[in-house]
Amino acid sequence: MTDNFLLTTKTAKELYAYAKALPIIDYHNHLSLADIKENKRFTDIYDLWLAPDPYKHRAMRMCGVPEKYITGDADGKEKFIKWCETVPKLLGNPLYHWSVMELCAMLGKAVVPSARNAEDLYRECNEYLSENVVDVKYLLEVFNVEFASPCASLTDDISVFKDKSGLAPSLRGDDIVSVNGDFTKKLSDVTGMEIRTLCDFERAVKKRLCDFEEVGCRYSDHALDNGFTYHADDGSNADRFTDAVLGSITDTDREKLSSYILTFLAKEYSRIGFTMQLHIGAQRYTSTRLRKQAGAVGGFAAIGNSVDIKSLTIFLDVVDMSESGLPKTILFTLNPADNALISVLSGSYSKDGMPGIITQGPAWWWCDHKKGITDMLENTEVFGVLSNFVGMTTDSRSFLSFVRHDYFRRILCDCIGQRYESGEYFCGVDALKDMIFKLCYLNAKETI
Amino acid sequence: MTDNFLLTTKTAKELYAYAKALPIIDYHNHLSLADIKENKRFTDIYDLWLAPDPYKHRAMRMCGVPEKYITGDADGKEKFIKWCETVPKLLGNPLYHWSVMELCAMLGKAVVPSARNAEDLYRECNEYLSENVVDVKYLLEVFNVEFASPCASLTDDISVFKDKSGLAPSLRGDDIVSVNGDFTKKLSDVTGMEIRTLCDFERAVKKRLCDFEEVGCRYSDHALDNGFTYHADDGSNADRFTDAVLGSITDTDREKLSSYILTFLAKEYSRIGFTMQLHIGAQRYTSTRLRKQAGAVGGFAAIGNSVDIKSLTIFLDVVDMSESGLPKTILFTLNPADNALISVLSGSYSKDGMPGIITQGPAWWWCDHKKGITDMLENTEVFGVLSNFVGMTTDSRSFLSFVRHDYFRRILCDCIGQRYESGEYFCGVDALKDMIFKLCYLNAKETI
Amino acid sequence: MTDNFLLTTKTAKELYAYAKALPIIDYHNHLSLADIKENKRFTDIYDLWLAPDPYKHRAMRMCGVPEKYITGDADGKEKFIKWCETVPKLLGNPLYHWSVMELCAMLGKAVVPSARNAEDLYRECNEYLSENVVDVKYLLEVFNVEFASPCASLTDDISVFKDKSGLAPSLRGDDIVSVNGDFTKKLSDVTGMEIRTLCDFERAVKKRLCDFEEVGCRYSDHALDNGFTYHADDGSNADRFTDAVLGSITDTDREKLSSYILTFLAKEYSRIGFTMQLHIGAQRYTSTRLRKQAGAVGGFAAIGNSVDIKSLTIFLDVVDMSESGLPKTILFTLNPADNALISVLSGSYSKDGMPGIITQGPAWWWCDHKKGITDMLENTEVFGVLSNFVGMTTDSRSFLSFVRHDYFRRILCDCIGQRYESGEYFCGVDALKDMIFKLCYLNAKETI
Repeated sequence: MTDNFLLTTKTAKELYAYAKALPIIDYHNHLSLADIKENKRFTDIYDLWLAPDPYKHRAMRMCGVPEKYITGDADGKEKFIKWCETVPKLLGNPLYHWSVMELCAMLGKAVVPSARNAEDLYRECNEYLSENVVDVKYLLEVFNVEFASPCASLTDDISVFKDKSGLAPSLRGDDIVSVNGDFTKKLSDVTGMEIRTLCDFERAVKKRLCDFEEVGCRYSDHALDNGFTYHADDGSNADRFTDAVLGSITDTDREKLSSYILTFLAKEYSRIGFTMQLHIGAQRYTSTRLRKQAGAVGGFAAIGNSVDIKSLTIFLDVVDMSESGLPKTILFTLNPADNALISVLSGSYSKDGMPGIITQGPAWWWCDHKKGITDMLENTEVFGVLSNFVGMTTDSRSFLSFVRHDYFRRILCDCIGQRYESGEYFCGVDALKDMIFKLCYLNAKETI
Repeated sequence: MTDNFLLTTKTAKELYAYAKALPIIDYHNHLSLADIKENKRFTDIYDLWLAPDPYKHRAMRMCGVPEKYITGDADGKEKFIKWCETVPKLLGNPLYHWSVMELCAMLGKAVVPSARNAEDLYRECNEYLSENVVDVKYLLEVFNVEFASPCASLTDDISVFKDKSGLAPSLRGDDIVSVNGDFTKKLSDVTGMEIRTLCDFERAVKKRLCDFEEVGCRYSDHALDNGFTYHADDGSNADRFTDAVLGSITDTDREKLSSYILTFLAKEYSRIGFTMQLHIGAQRYTSTRLRKQAGAVGGFAAIGNSVDIKSLTIFLDVVDMSESGLPKTILFTLNPADNALISVLSGSYSKDGMPGIITQGPAWWWCDHKKGITDMLENTEVFGVLSNFVGMTTDSRSFLSFVRHDYFRRILCDCIGQRYESGEYFCGVDALKDMIFKLCYLNAKETI
Repeated sequence: MTDNFLLTTKTAKELYAYAKALPIIDYHNHLSLADIKENKRFTDIYDLWLAPDPYKHRAMRMCGVPEKYITGDADGKEKFIKWCETVPKLLGNPLYHWSVMELCAMLGKAVVPSARNAEDLYRECNEYLSENVVDVKYLLEVFNVEFASPCASLTDDISVFKDKSGLAPSLRGDDIVSVNGDFTKKLSDVTGMEIRTLCDFERAVKKRLCDFEEVGCRYSDHALDNGFTYHADDGSNADRFTDAVLGSITDTDREKLSSYILTFLAKEYSRIGFTMQLHIGAQRYTSTRLRKQAGAVGGFAAIGNSVDIKSLTIFLDVVDMSESGLPKTILFTLNPADNALISVLSGSYSKDGMPGIITQGPAWWWCDHKKGITDMLENTEVFGVLSNFVGMTTDSRSFLSFVRHDYFRRILCDCIGQRYESGEYFCGVDALKDMIFKLCYLNAKETI
């Protein structure tokens, strides 16, 4: 890996020299609140690099590594070695690039892990971690992270974010939308409010949204998984709420109640000024065996079929036509075939004086690689307005994943550099730098 | 913008030098019949350039321009200035290129509109329009338009086309297929025939089709929007027709009646020799607010989900198996994920001695840009037969949109030039010029 | 066509020099068992080149050639001439390249067939075929085919494969899954077992699977056509089986019974060690007219809508959770929009010690061209693990189609060469050669 990795033109290099110095705004990730709270110091490379990264677990499984060495009872060193043996088999996969970049961020040199160097690498990394204080604070600094927004559920303890500049929660709203007895109990406990009716529930949610706002929350997010269907309010959702709390709701009624709650939340987000993120198109149920073995986020989820564009447009329209109007909305798609549909949608709704009220989010999850990022950028520029794009976020559980901003910036600079050098942009390089500034920093900054 | 804009190889430049001189056949557009009738002279750049172009309105909305300056009560100059401010934000969007090309076609020089030059540009354009006679006749001449075919409804006044060489209507058939009382009334008036039954209706439609043929009509088109489902005739459509005229038809019966009428029309098109255009995959209902504000064609439509390929194949099969057989059919797709499905379909039906009885149409609407055109060409060449492709049409409401033929030709020449120079075509440049001649002129000419 | 056809970098050329010498493992094709049995000698170029190739028939139809010269009563020479006239119209289509490569494999020189040289070419080819013994044995040798696996139905005569090294059947299982009275009769005859119940049927199928194994069968394949829906076993399939044999089964029950049988077979494949191929997404019913005229495999099939990913994942999950677990599974997709979905799925299931238990198959049927192959490779490398890819197979009815391995290898070497030269692979050329060895030979070899 050279300094010019992924930069194929002179202009790309010039743009990247500018981009790489910009601070990181990571507006959606899954960093551990517990690690942040205790400012965890990492002393073992397995804990830092492999344990929190289900992408790597998945790749090991694809290469036939026994589960023992992935989530099983092998020790950290054994798992580290199996991972190193796997990396050279991943030529062409983003994990190949990320792994080298992640190690490089720490050790300051590019090394491709392999069976040959695994033992040495393990020792070298752990020596580094014993000789240097690599804790959460250090990691955020070394990656130049100006703002990071880890997910938190509405009922999570968010005291960790009090008086923490540069850190605020991103509200993960899925358990609100799929409300049940457990959740209302927890919500009741955390708000001190009695919750018997849908009205009570909405009041408690609103109160808690204020708590989130107070610690700096600016974002919410929801998963619209494969099969998402929107139902207009038919006036029966108070009853459905009661059934949901009692655990006696049918699947169809659940879908209707979820549509109602999602709409309620979207309006609240608009009022309170949160940006709403919709993560569209995952198919999370695949292998029952792996779900038992590796947990719900164990890295085996698939890409679902195309979003039901009618459901999505009706949902957005209902919110648009409400008193509050649409919140700033970022649509992430996991199915590349939906890139065009989603990026075009940014032209189907508008708000006076508010550029990009609906925009496509960066290439997400399995699409976070050169092909996926390039596809997303190309679709956004031709079907939407690239200069409105809110930029990269890692969506990761690992502190080392901040290298993906660097990965993204290289790819972005290369795309823009190529267009420029082929004569498709009728402007000077300064205008391109303005664009880079917006896409790597300013547009995200303005959503905080 | 240089003369070699989008032309990256020597061969591309040679092919384009040949292509650019070919006349334009624009077989499907939405130019105003009223403007054509009065040979409207344009004296204000807003009227010529912005008013008839919902693509530009959409882009302004995406950039947060208040609706006042788009479809609201601001004056033409204010709207012009807001548009100029918007253009530099559209780097990478086709509107960025088209805007420069459109101005260049008029002023003879490449200028990127911007906040800085907006006032001067407004004055310069309007001076040009006052000093030169820029009317419909002039515009068709200056763009070398040999034939243009604006849409007309079956009940529209088509007298404008009488004795107009180079101009003929393209029949927009959607209101026939979604027949109601209003439409039968108008059809009865225009044909002087009483319409009480489905049989009467078919007779009147046939009579009117002859009227269209008499003024040179060679094309029809239908929108198969997202959700198009085909139903075989069950013998009950005479009753459904009565319900439709009375306005008491259910959604399901409407779908069945529409399938019946579409099939009836396709057979008639085959008999009368019209080419049938099917525009597949729009999702026209998105924002209720914008629909009220900007009208049904206000530029906020989205891309729908994939076409139901079974419905489409059954429809084509039913017509193919009828006495008349299939008319020449052009399938346009708005969802890029359907490019392969649609281009493959050109090999699923055939007619002895009739090359390309079914072909894919050019990249349409939101797909009309370098990426969309390239995708369409690549899919057609590998899944179908590129040399059967009927070529570009603007589908636009604006007289300045004829620059899009130039845009298309550059992209086409670049694609073919690249293949040639990389050794994938085992032929000489003369064979490539034959191809260019077919795709830019002859194949469309042969459908007139 | 030069020696460096499709090879655009120095590295690509170096890799191809290595790849071209590797033997061919063609693990799925439709070569005629009768031709193999009699070691058919081809003495007429029409019989060898055109008769067994529905791809060419389809292209002729698209170019308007009358059916008389395709499947009709014209003689071989006339048909040959019409095909030659068609080829130059196919610029950009894989048939253009394949045709030149196929002739080159025989005549040793690159010739583009055309109207001009058709007569001469016909004479030259037939002279070659009379002066040289071009039989099945020769063709397998000249293309360096180490192993070929033509499809056979469970009830076919597979005695041809006894003691034939390098040849074994690939079980075409569609008639098992869509069982009826005819099929059970034939199965009963071939096994000598009475089949009255579903249990009897399963016993007979198992016995016959052993017969297939004995003659070297290592593969099975099933078509999951557009509309494939999976139903979990509800315990009523014994009754449905009886209905199916009697020919009185409903469409819905047929779907349920097929799901049951497919699951039963997948488990058996796992036990017996067969690799299961699933060919996903064809829409085989298009033109009734062509189906009558040219038969079910006449070349007019289309691409269907996206696979129902939920059905597919439930099916795989049910087999994964069974005692036998998943067999090695290759997923072919005909709809390019499914490339990402299918390649991601390779990470959703795993088996300890078994790399690539589920992988995507090579670009299939209408997707077998530079664009399709490149798309498939790019998706597999970013969403899956390219080094697990099992490599190319022709899926063809024509002995000359082995040139497609050469086509694939050129494209593969070019893709890998480009990545390498752009600095995306942090390894030496030797590691790339290892990859080429796996993808062109070893991975397929290991499934035999």
